[in-house]
This record gives sequence, structure tokens and C-alpha cells, in this order.
Amino acid sequence: MAALGLTYARLCAGLKPARVCYGLVGCRTGLLMHLTRSLSGMTIEQIDEEVAKLLQLKAQIGDDGGKHVFVLKTAKGTRDYNPKQMAIREKVFNTIINCFKRHGAETIDTPVFELKETLTGKYGEDSKLIYDLKDQGGELLSLRYDLTVPFARYLAMNKITNIKRYHIAKVYRRDNPAMTRGRYREFYQCDFDIAGQYDPMIPDAECLRIVHEILSELELGDFRIKVNDRRILDGMFAVCGVPDDKFRTICSSVDKLDKMPWEEVKNEIVKEKGLPEEVADQIGEYVNMQAGGMALAEQLLQDPKLAKSKAACAGLTDIKLLFSFLELFKVTDKVVFDLSLARGLDYYTGVIYEAILTQAGVAPAPAPTPSPQEANGAAGDDGPVSVGSVAGGGRYDGLVGMFDPKGRKVPCVGVSIGIERIFSIMEQKAELSAEKVRTTETQVMVASAQKNLLEERLKLTSELWDAGVKAEVMYKRNPKLLSQLQHCEDTGIPLVAILGEQELKDGVVKLRTVATREEMDVSRADLVEEIRKRTSQS
Amino acid sequence: MAALGLTYARLCAGLKPARVCYGLVGCRTGLLMHLTRSLSGMTIEQIDEEVAKLLQLKAQIGDDGGKHVFVLKTAKGTRDYNPKQMAIREKVFNTIINCFKRHGAETIDTPVFELKETLTGKYGEDSKLIYDLKDQGGELLSLRYDLTVPFARYLAMNKITNIKRYHIAKVYRRDNPAMTRGRYREFYQCDFDIAGQYDPMIPDAECLRIVHEILSELELGDFRIKVNDRRILDGMFAVCGVPDDKFRTICSSVDKLDKMPWEEVKNEIVKEKGLPEEVADQIGEYVNMQAGGMALAEQLLQDPKLAKSKAACAGLTDIKLLFSFLELFKVTDKVVFDLSLARGLDYYTGVIYEAILTQAGVAPAPAPTPSPQEANGAAGDDGPVSVGSVAGGGRYDGLVGMFDPKGRKVPCVGVSIGIERIFSIMEQKAELSAEKVRTTETQVMVASAQKNLLEERLKLTSELWDAGVKAEVMYKRNPKLLSQLQHCEDTGIPLVAILGEQELKDGVVKLRTVATREEMDVSRADLVEEIRKRTSQS
Repeated sequence: MAALGLTYARLCAGLKPARVCYGLVGCRTGLLMHLTRSLSGMTIEQIDEEVAKLLQLKAQIGDDGGKHVFVLKTAKGTRDYNPKQMAIREKVFNTIINCFKRHGAETIDTPVFELKETLTGKYGEDSKLIYDLKDQGGELLSLRYDLTVPFARYLAMNKITNIKRYHIAKVYRRDNPAMTRGRYREFYQCDFDIAGQYDPMIPDAECLRIVHEILSELELGDFRIKVNDRRILDGMFAVCGVPDDKFRTICSSVDKLDKMPWEEVKNEIVKEKGLPEEVADQIGEYVNMQAGGMALAEQLLQDPKLAKSKAACAGLTDIKLLFSFLELFKVTDKVVFDLSLARGLDYYTGVIYEAILTQAGVAPAPAPTPSPQEANGAAGDDGPVSVGSVAGGGRYDGLVGMFDPKGRKVPCVGVSIGIERIFSIMEQKAELSAEKVRTTETQVMVASAQKNLLEERLKLTSELWDAGVKAEVMYKRNPKLLSQLQHCEDTGIPLVAILGEQELKDGVVKLRTVATREEMDVSRADLVEEIRKRTSQS
Repeated sequence: MAALGLTYARLCAGLKPARVCYGLVGCRTGLLMHLTRSLSGMTIEQIDEEVAKLLQLKAQIGDDGGKHVFVLKTAKGTRDYNPKQMAIREKVFNTIINCFKRHGAETIDTPVFELKETLTGKYGEDSKLIYDLKDQGGELLSLRYDLTVPFARYLAMNKITNIKRYHIAKVYRRDNPAMTRGRYREFYQCDFDIAGQYDPMIPDAECLRIVHEILSELELGDFRIKVNDRRILDGMFAVCGVPDDKFRTICSSVDKLDKMPWEEVKNEIVKEKGLPEEVADQIGEYVNMQAGGMALAEQLLQDPKLAKSKAACAGLTDIKLLFSFLELFKVTDKVVFDLSLARGLDYYTGVIYEAILTQAGVAPAPAPTPSPQEANGAAGDDGPVSVGSVAGGGRYDGLVGMFDPKGRKVPCVGVSIGIERIFSIMEQKAELSAEKVRTTETQVMVASAQKNLLEERLKLTSELWDAGVKAEVMYKRNPKLLSQLQHCEDTGIPLVAILGEQELKDGVVKLRTVATREEMDVSRADLVEEIRKRTSQS
């Protein structure tokens, strides 16, 4: 990915004068936009940065249009996927999509940008990470930040009250990229959500079963799924004496427990967030409880303090119900009820969950869960964590109502698979593995051992395509047999159909197995069947 | 898609004060940006438009934050895909991807935005249709306009000189949308390109074979593929006396021949473009020639006037060679050599082609070919055409060199399938057809005829998921049997596995075929196999 310099002069060689002129205008606008922006709350650093950028531009233009260094790169925080990465990506997507389909999900798609207003007020402080489009006349637009808000907009707009859908697409965040750790500004989300008014915890349990299925099938090593409930957290904070307006900020402190010891979290609660030490200690008693299953929920229901909170009791009763379903679904081996799980809570209203990989060494350096439901969660964190979060989600019963003109609610629960980190793990595994990743599916190469057989090669290739066989032919009049065979070795094509004068006379093709170098004559009439037979096992 | 009103007050109910404040800052910035932009060449109309927008904003804010009408819609020129549309889209993509894979193609992906500079100077006048991102500090970015320029950037950046790749992704154009006619501001492109230095016309012929395969397999009705060559057009214009600097504009006049009679095109050439009438008449002689095959190329090679142009002779010789390969590929029934095909020519250097549907009534109202190679071509056209262009492409040997620091060229030829129009046609067909489009792949619904069997239903469903069966279960404690059966009818689920007290006692499940209403008892041990057997035929 080395950045290459390219002289501006060369690049402009094919341009009309109008284009160059446009560049100058753009620069002048930028200068004025700088002045503008300084009025709307820029920091000193930002202004310095802008000035540097403008001076750089000015220098380039002053230089009589020459020597502009064109940097050959992708935008910051983004990457291309090469064919090998795409092959891995396709495999991961197939596993995930198969699982979603096994659970009867439909799929939808929404545009990459939404009206700016649609995203407004949904992400709290993280709104600053939203990419806005330039106002070129017309509507004010922003790139989608997740798939959940567009989903809620879609439901409200089309008055849909019942749907089980998945959506796999890219989302955009102007975050500090950490690409070696799988954190990008453009990244995929794989979301599965169930919308509708149903009996308690049945769809919620299915979401957890889906996480279990996907992580098991992808063979990423051992994992654990932590579960908690927004109502339990709220109730717990209330009975510990946290003022209502501090629930949110204390949540985000508690959320750090998987990255730092309790003492540090407590310090933050007391010194930064200004709560009395005894309140922090009471919170500590709960969040430091050993994670458990249904028994822990039972135990907490007996807790005289928590019993005072209706919200906590409702949450605990539902956790018990959830675990009874999870037992039927045979996934309790991996699921734990963990009071310290807080996640981003902007639109969560009930159960929340997060899956982490527990096997050291498999997971790459940590990256945030790119969950559509994470809101203010892990996305902004930069600190080291011991395990990797690879899925997350929860119940959000109020979001659709924010879009409905009459405020009609559509209860929703969903899960997002943190696919970028999974890609990273799979890529690492592929690199360590001896097995070569194929980037094509070609079954046979049509080759010739002698010269002047291009037409015969093309004719045979055409016949194979007609029969649905995946076949390649070299785009050379007289390629060497060796280079044709080498191409098969390089790309993993298992068979070569070799034509020669003698074969043409005999109405046969020499079919060669690349791995064993065995060759045998096959009649033209039997060729397709023979290729199918030999490639069906692989 | 009715736009729904939502009071600003309601939307803001859940917002922090910071958000509202942010809105005010944004507005103030907008006001100043208006002043800024007026300095950089806005028209009076644009200024008026901006002022109206600002006054509207001011009115909303002045109104104490109330009564802001939130419009529930997608951005102009974009649309959501509902599950039914997605099912059709998936089917079309599968056909196309299978074809690309049959021809040994790999796939890559690139980010949705590029550095603004990367797109600069590649699209001529159409650059005004590029979506820019707002300058939020950092790099200046634009949404990709096609997949070809990012592909060329990818090749140069990674020093790749040989690749056969496909890329299916959305691209963005701030065009005048005509959504009923399949023209959107966000739309898919399906590109297949062959990069590398090869012997003449072999990859070019494969691209045409691919168009033939895809259009045949999609069963869109009869079609024709027009072929021409940039060098023939240039040579023809030269020998007719068109000045070099007018080739491009005369090309775009000639390109209108499929939409208007020659007399009108000639009028444009003479009156608007200012060429002498005798030059126009000479062009007319060529472009009004009956389209043909190899024989037409032979005939033109004998043309004493064209013989003076080296470019034209080279192009004609290659067209002959191309047709010889197309005969081997058995696609000459649909391909014609047509001197009137001009297409957008910004980066084309050799053969060009375009596929049109010739069967009236199947094609929807016309829309431009969303080809990555079309450049200044059809995208801007608005007039009525009699047939629909559904694929296009050509050879572009100079584009990669524009990105290479040493200007090293990588010859490329490619084709783009105009997928949005194909979606429209398939959607129309699906609506007319009696066959219902399924949006899920669920094989069996796990139901119960009696109350209090939720746990048993969940347990059986879980067993089916374990076995890889696609199974659904209702998220209700005690759903009515009728509503469970109705769900199967509605969504096309072919089988129902019904549990009751008796069945549980006997260790069986009542398996019902929805279509025939036949029921039979199947032992639990045989259930998975029986479901597989019954759903494998469908």
C-alpha cells in the first residue's frame, strides 16, 4: 500500500482547462470556509490544521500548476479488498447469511445516505462522527452511521409492524481509525432484527441462539455471551442512589470494567463523575458479582434492596424466562448473566448482550464491536482489552416510535455481528494455514501444446461455457504449455484440457489433473461429464 | 412512500440540549457558507434558493423549536429495497455472478468514497454530477461515480498488470432522477473487466460473449449488441473533414441517432456545432449505413476515403478479427457492427459496444445505461428512446496510466451490466406472473394445535436448526393453529410440523404439506430426512 507520487502536470495532461480552474475556485472557497468555520466553534488545533492545509494548497497553485504531488491512496480509514480478502469475506458472509435464512429472515436494503435529520438525535455525543455530504444544493444528507436507525425509519415510513429481517451493508464513522486492529471508517455491519409485538423473551432468545450458531460455525475459538438488561441496570443505579440524570454516564464507567480493574472505575465514578464513595461502593457490590445464570437472577430477585425497584424486578423476571428458553435452545453453555455488562445504551430499553472471544491468541488486537445498537459504546474506546467483542445487540422498543408521526411504537430486538474483526481473524488463520485460498472457481483450463490452435481452444472453451463448466483460456495466440500449466498451479485450477493436432484428429482431449500430473484421453462427447465428476469431490 | 409529518418537538423529546444547540450552530455556519459560496461563482438562482432555505431554517428556529415538519423519506433519487425486491435482486445477481465466475473472474471491493483528486478529470462535464463530502477536517472526499476509475486507481496503486475481475457495487450521481424509468442517484453497477497486455481482440470477444450469456440467461426477450471502435469513429470524422477538437462533440451528436432521425442530428451538427453541411453529409453516408457483420468491415476496408486513415484501418481490421472470434463463441446472431454507435468516449481507446433490448413491451420506459465506461454518454440523456440499453462497455487502454507515477499503461477492456433497468424488468415480470416471489427460504413451520406447548415447539425448532433445517416458530405462547397455517400460506412455507399431546406421547410429529393439506405422522427420528426429501424437489 505504498503511496506513490505523481506529478500534477502529468495528471492534468488529459484535462480540460475548466478542470484546473475548478480546482482554484475550490481552494478559494476552502479559505473562506475556514473563516466561516472558525466562527462556529473550531479549536485552535483545528484552525492550525486548516491553515496548514490552505498554505499547502496555495504553494501548489503558486507553483504555476506544476509539481502537485498526487497521492495514490484510499481515503483515511478505508481499504480496498483484494481477491483473496474477498474470497474470505464471501465465505464468512455465506455462513452468516445461511444462519439468518435458517431462521426465516428476509432481507432489505436502504440507501447509503439518509436525510441528515433522520440521523439527528439518535447517537448522542457520537453524532460528531457522522459523515455529512457537502451542500451542493438540495437536501442535506449524511452517510449512515449504522443500519438500525435506517431500519427504524424504514419501518415507520412503510408502516410495518412485523418483520424479521437481516441487512448486511457498510456504515461510516469519522472515528480515529486503527486499521491494524480492525477498526475502519468504512466497515460492514451484519444485522439481524425482529420487529413486532410478541410474547416476552422469545425473539430475544432467538437472537442469542443466532450468535451462538454463527460463532460456533465460524470456528473462531471459544466464546462467551454476556447478558444483562437495561431495566436491571437502571433499577440497580436507582437503589444505589445514583441520580436519574447520571444513569447514562455511570453506565459508561461501568462499561469499562472489562478493560480496567474496579478500583479505577470506582475512582472515575467518585472523582470524575462526582458521586459519593458509598454510592460507588454499593454499585461495586453488584457489578463485581460473579457472572451466573438463572440462579443469579433468582438470587437477585431475593435481594431486599433491588426488590424496591419495579424495573429491576421486571428485568430479572425476564432474564429468568430468557434462560429457560436458552436451555431449550441448548446454548446456556456459553451464556452468562453479567451485571457489569453496560454497553451503549442510547436506545436500548430491555435485554442487552455482547459476545466475546475468550481464547487468547486467536483474537487480533482489540477493536470495538461495530454493532448497530452500540450507540455510544465501544466505538470510541481506544484502551487495550483482553478479549475481543465480536457481536452485540439488545432490545430497543422506542426507536421506531421516534419516526412515527403518531409516535406508535414497534418493539424491536436485534443483534449485530462484528464482521470486520471476524474478517481479520479469518485472514490471519488463512495466512497461517497451509491451504491456499482460491480466488476463482475455475474448473478447467483449456490449453494447447502446439502453436496455431487458438481457434480450437476458443471453440472448446465456448462449448464448456455452454455446458455451464467454469473454464479459462489464455488470451495469447501461442502461449507456452508451461505457462498455461503454471497459471493453473498459481490459481488452483484443478484440471487442464489439452488440445493438440493428434487429439483433434482423434476427437479427444487430453485431460490432465494438475495435482497428480496424470493425463488421460477423454472423448469430446464425454468431456463435460468427466470434468463434472472430477471436480464434484473437491 | 407517502411523506409523513412529524413535529420537531416530538423528535427532540429524547434529545440532549447539546443536539439542539448543534443544529443552531449548523445553521449559522450555513448562513456564512452561503456568503462564502456566492464568492465562488454561484448563480443568482442558486443564491435565491440558498436564501429561501436559510429563511426557512430561521423560521423553524425562531418558532421556539416547535412545529418543524420532519419529512419521513429517503434522499432524493434513492430508494429502499423491500424483501420482495431483494429476492429478485438476489436472483439477478446470482445469474450474473455465476457467469462472471464461469469465466474465471476474481472479485475486489473498493471504498464508497475516494479522494476527490482521484476522480478529478476523468468524467469531463459530468464531473458536476459527483457527490462531494463535506469538509469536516481532513481529506477532501467524493462518492464514487463509477467502478472503473476506482479499479484503475487500484491497479496503479498495487502495481497490478494482469487481472480479470468483477465488481458489483453502488455508485452515485447527482443526476436528475427519473425513478419510474429506473434512473436513480444511487444505483448498482455490475462490472467485469480484463486488464493486461494480450493478443488483439481475445479478451474483447470474451466480454461480448459474457453480455450474450447474461442477457440470454435472464430471459429478458430478444436483444442486439452493437459494436464499433473508437479508432473507426475518429478516422471517419477525420476523413470527413471534422476538426480534431470537434471529434468529441460530434460523437455525442451521432450518439443520438437511436433517439432521433438523421435530419435532426444533421441539423445539430450544422447549426449548433457549426460544421459545413457537406461535412455533415459525408458523416451521414457512413453512420446511416446498414449495420452488418464482418462483411461490412471488409467493405469499409475497401473504401478509398477511409483507407487514408490509419486509425480507421486498424479499427476495421480488429473488428474483422473480433467477428472471427465471435463466430467461434457462437454469438454472431446477436452482434452487429454499427457505425452509428458512439457512446461516451472519455476514456475509450478501441472497441466499444452496447446491448439493447429489441422486444417492445418488455422494456420499461428508457433509462441510461449505468455503465462505468459510459463517461459522458447516455447518463445525461432524457429523451424518449424506442429500446432499452442494458449493457455497455469498451476498451480503455490509457486510464490506468493516468494514475501511475511513471505513466505505465495497463490495457483494459470491460463491460458493465445495466442492472437497475434489469431489476425493473424483472420486477414487472414478477408482478405479471402468477407465481409468488418468496422472500424467505423457510422449509418448515413448527406449530402446535393445542395450548401450553411453547417449550415443546422451541425444543423441536432447536433440533431442526441443529440439523441445518430452515425452520420458523411463532413468537407467541399460544398461537392459533389457523394463524400458524396462515403464515405459511402468506410466506410460501411448504411444510408444517405440528405438535400435540398425542404426537408427543407417540414420539411423532404430524407433518403437513401446505399446498395439498395432506398430513402424515412422522417419527421424530425421521423428521429431518423427511423434510429434506420433501423440500429438495422444490
